[in-house]
Amino acid sequence: MTSLTENVSVVLVEPQDDINIGNAVRASKNFGIEDLRLVNPAHADRDRIAISAPRAHETIDRMGRFETLDEALDDCVMTVGLTARARSAHWRVVEPEQAAAELIAEAAKGRRVAMLFGREDSGLPNSALDRCQAVVTIPTNPDYSSINLGQAVLLMAWEVSRAARKMQAGEVVAAPVSAPQNAWHSEFEPAPMAGLTRMFGQAEAALEAIEFVKGSSNDHIMRSLRSVFLRARLDTRELAIWHGIFKEIVAYMRRKGIEP
Amino acid sequence: MTSLTENVSVVLVEPQDDINIGNAVRASKNFGIEDLRLVNPAHADRDRIAISAPRAHETIDRMGRFETLDEALDDCVMTVGLTARARSAHWRVVEPEQAAAELIAEAAKGRRVAMLFGREDSGLPNSALDRCQAVVTIPTNPDYSSINLGQAVLLMAWEVSRAARKMQAGEVVAAPVSAPQNAWHSEFEPAPMAGLTRMFGQAEAALEAIEFVKGSSNDHIMRSLRSVFLRARLDTRELAIWHGIFKEIVAYMRRKGIEP
Repeated sequence: MTSLTENVSVVLVEPQDDINIGNAVRASKNFGIEDLRLVNPAHADRDRIAISAPRAHETIDRMGRFETLDEALDDCVMTVGLTARARSAHWRVVEPEQAAAELIAEAAKGRRVAMLFGREDSGLPNSALDRCQAVVTIPTNPDYSSINLGQAVLLMAWEVSRAARKMQAGEVVAAPVSAPQNAWHSEFEPAPMAGLTRMFGQAEAALEAIEFVKGSSNDHIMRSLRSVFLRARLDTRELAIWHGIFKEIVAYMRRKGIEP
Repeated sequence: MTSLTENVSVVLVEPQDDINIGNAVRASKNFGIEDLRLVNPAHADRDRIAISAPRAHETIDRMGRFETLDEALDDCVMTVGLTARARSAHWRVVEPEQAAAELIAEAAKGRRVAMLFGREDSGLPNSALDRCQAVVTIPTNPDYSSINLGQAVLLMAWEVSRAARKMQAGEVVAAPVSAPQNAWHSEFEPAPMAGLTRMFGQAEAALEAIEFVKGSSNDHIMRSLRSVFLRARLDTRELAIWHGIFKEIVAYMRRKGIEP
């Protein structure tokens, strides 16, 4: 199995059933993914997880546990989220093969990437999709479309391992000619999610400071703003500039004696 | 879902556990395969099968039941058999993607093709592999390779449905290079360049207002800012939001009596 898959993380958001966590562990491990992360799981009892993931105690014990999705994604430069729902215009929607190719292209540069899976009954909330560079839908029979968590993980782990093998065999993994992010080659590193999260927080503070948004009416503006930056896939230098811009809006007004 | 998958049959040889049969039914049906055949199953009780394949009674009731594999394959022009074991020289061994491409190429000619899966504990016997045009092994982590019956069916059904979609999209199936996908589909029109130019002007005015940039030192900042927005390929609604943000920075300061 390829080492490229070692840079891929499987992130389960609020998994409710430990048997499903075990299925996800097993499916990930089958295809060389050893890094699993749980965000706010309902139980996550290691022995119950091991029922459906036999001989995987080491992987289970190493699983990261986080209270918030932002913490779980801190070191990731690219995240894709699985969803079954019809899309709005906010997100870039790709098929599993395309997502896997893009993830492995980043993983091949030694960067950590993540695949997000939501809770069994409700999937990923919009706030989680807002943290993704792309959203993945698995094309299924419209008359019989329900895929469970373990199966979705299996399918994505399979796609990622296949993309990794292709890349290591020297094949062109993806031909996403029209995708803007692939037309973009920066001399700087891609911005890590932790930095983007901080910048988004600073942006919201700035928009509030100029009274462009107020309280709960922020949501659709902030979603739009995140979407633009995630699609553009900022590098670290750009991230620094934008962070600086939003910070300066607040700082300038303070200097002028306006307390937001 | 494509009708090409209607010509694909999933054949389970001596399945021992009805829950696994149900998982196979569900996974097949997820990807448009409705024809399942059982060869000499241990039980095959429809209600037990339905536990893991909810709302699939019709498909379950239509399942063919055969005493011998030869009878089950009578109408098939091509058969591939799944196996985890090391190969002898007897069989042509292919990966799932290749097998799916070959099966769908036949299915597209209106011919029936089959995928064979063996019993849970021992897999397919040599006598079954001898009836296959190709033998399929799923490349897994050698240290953790065990895939269960339902997962193997899911993975092959997925591959077959993907090959079918590619063929129907006019792609050459046997040369599986991913299609360039248009990355970003918005319900709004793409922002026209004239509007972007105005927004960039407004942005520069805002950055000057907060003294983030001054005079000729603007150039590299403005270049970076343009680059981000052009890569993200804004739609008209997003353009309006960003124009509004930059305009409001200046307007807010004016309202507060700060003249840039």
